[in-house]
Amino acid sequence: MELIYYIDLLGTMVFAISGAMAAMRHNIDIFGAAFTGFVTAIGGGSLRDIFLNLRPVWVDDGNYLLAILAGVLIAVLFKSVLGRLARTLFLFDALGIGFFTVVGVQKSLAFDSSGIAAVVLGMFSAVMGGVIRDTLLNETPLIFRKEIYATACLSGAILFVTLNSMGINYNLNAFLSTSVVSIIRIIAVRYKLALPIVGG
Amino acid sequence: MELIYYIDLLGTMVFAISGAMAAMRHNIDIFGAAFTGFVTAIGGGSLRDIFLNLRPVWVDDGNYLLAILAGVLIAVLFKSVLGRLARTLFLFDALGIGFFTVVGVQKSLAFDSSGIAAVVLGMFSAVMGGVIRDTLLNETPLIFRKEIYATACLSGAILFVTLNSMGINYNLNAFLSTSVVSIIRIIAVRYKLALPIVGG
Amino acid sequence: MELIYYIDLLGTMVFAISGAMAAMRHNIDIFGAAFTGFVTAIGGGSLRDIFLNLRPVWVDDGNYLLAILAGVLIAVLFKSVLGRLARTLFLFDALGIGFFTVVGVQKSLAFDSSGIAAVVLGMFSAVMGGVIRDTLLNETPLIFRKEIYATACLSGAILFVTLNSMGINYNLNAFLSTSVVSIIRIIAVRYKLALPIVGG
Repeated sequence: MELIYYIDLLGTMVFAISGAMAAMRHNIDIFGAAFTGFVTAIGGGSLRDIFLNLRPVWVDDGNYLLAILAGVLIAVLFKSVLGRLARTLFLFDALGIGFFTVVGVQKSLAFDSSGIAAVVLGMFSAVMGGVIRDTLLNETPLIFRKEIYATACLSGAILFVTLNSMGINYNLNAFLSTSVVSIIRIIAVRYKLALPIVGG
Repeated sequence: MELIYYIDLLGTMVFAISGAMAAMRHNIDIFGAAFTGFVTAIGGGSLRDIFLNLRPVWVDDGNYLLAILAGVLIAVLFKSVLGRLARTLFLFDALGIGFFTVVGVQKSLAFDSSGIAAVVLGMFSAVMGGVIRDTLLNETPLIFRKEIYATACLSGAILFVTLNSMGINYNLNAFLSTSVVSIIRIIAVRYKLALPIVGG
Repeated sequence: MELIYYIDLLGTMVFAISGAMAAMRHNIDIFGAAFTGFVTAIGGGSLRDIFLNLRPVWVDDGNYLLAILAGVLIAVLFKSVLGRLARTLFLFDALGIGFFTVVGVQKSLAFDSSGIAAVVLGMFSAVMGGVIRDTLLNETPLIFRKEIYATACLSGAILFVTLNSMGINYNLNAFLSTSVVSIIRIIAVRYKLALPIVGG
């Protein structure tokens, strides 16, 4: 339990770093970078909690905001170093979305959502911070353009709900489902896999 | 009551179709189309419920998400057929916004909002899904550009609250107010009526 | 207490005026102007209340919506007069963001948020209406571009939480913190102060 809490804080910090870095590509002042980092880090989980009619966790637990502050400072101070760590950051992100998806599914089920809503809310937890970030920065949301991203989260969320309904051991399920998200994401980027375009 | 529930599911599906079709005009992958369909279908009602401090209905009742899934599949599979049904879809939309407006006003009053807030929340129920859709797709929201749309919802919402405060029979009121929204909308499009521009 | 209520209504009206005026610069119809005025006026406070898991005040108290309606009408009817009052409106805005920040911090603390969350939520109360307005109008949010704005709110919010934790007299604290926001904002515009750009 303790461990999950610290992973959650770490994941929040990593998302804040990625949000602040996205903002810095837009010639934005330091407040804008912090604001974007904050929104990216808490957007998905907050939206899930609001849909569940709960108070987002950062409203009560100040540690999340401190983790975000740390993430923003790291992004601003070590900008050029981070630029060279693109591959590492990508791996962190792939692990992060897996973790946030599974935590999101669990929390939704724990607060009595339907199984299918838990799938949607788990995926939201992982990707909506990025959607809000892109909308604020006036870009077409990345999840509309990028290699399989939200779909990886969706797959892991469906797996978790399915195994959970079969009564599979909880920790094993969490481990498997998180891995599935991360692995699909990594393979998709490595082999440039994408979903079919349906428009045009 | 049963009937209203099925109309609500049908309306949700129609909104999902229109959302997915809007996304497909943007060269978006199949996940993006599904995501946009989902947001369009649940955006307005969810926002109303959040303002009323309630859990959106789709979090507890999985049928809404299944209706959305069906709508997205219909949009993707029958894209070219739907393209030729523009007039039918327009009529469905005109009926749908009337229905959602009145349902939204009712629910707000039932949960003790003020009358004027019920008017706003009823209109929101019908139009905010589209506003979020347009914002995500990085367009100026349609309600800022189009022939009388939200204004039709506003008129029906005001009528419902007014007649309701006079103690008019509830079913009659719902029927009249829904009709007013749909008729104003249809006349506005037929005769290209628009509100005066105040800017420039 | 009474006085605070009327200042709150007045502030809401001023924000509605500024929102409607921003919309009118976009060749928008009268409904779009009213909608934008509404969103600008209630966006920040509503977001704060949703994060606190409360019903936004305007859902229960119709006076807020009447104040917004009045603001929109003033903006539409006296557009050219208001154009010549830019300096007065700026002063009202500088006072308004100070007031809304402090009210937001207080309310968050009163509903048991952590101190650091109260700072964020106080700043949100003052600036998020404008962020949503700009996003709807498809512009890069002003707080990403403008002279010190949200940062002024942040400074006042930090001051209020700090003095409050020291047990300083509540009214004195509110007066000091509001003034700090307004004065930082006025000085920043007068001397064209801006935060350092971190991007590029």
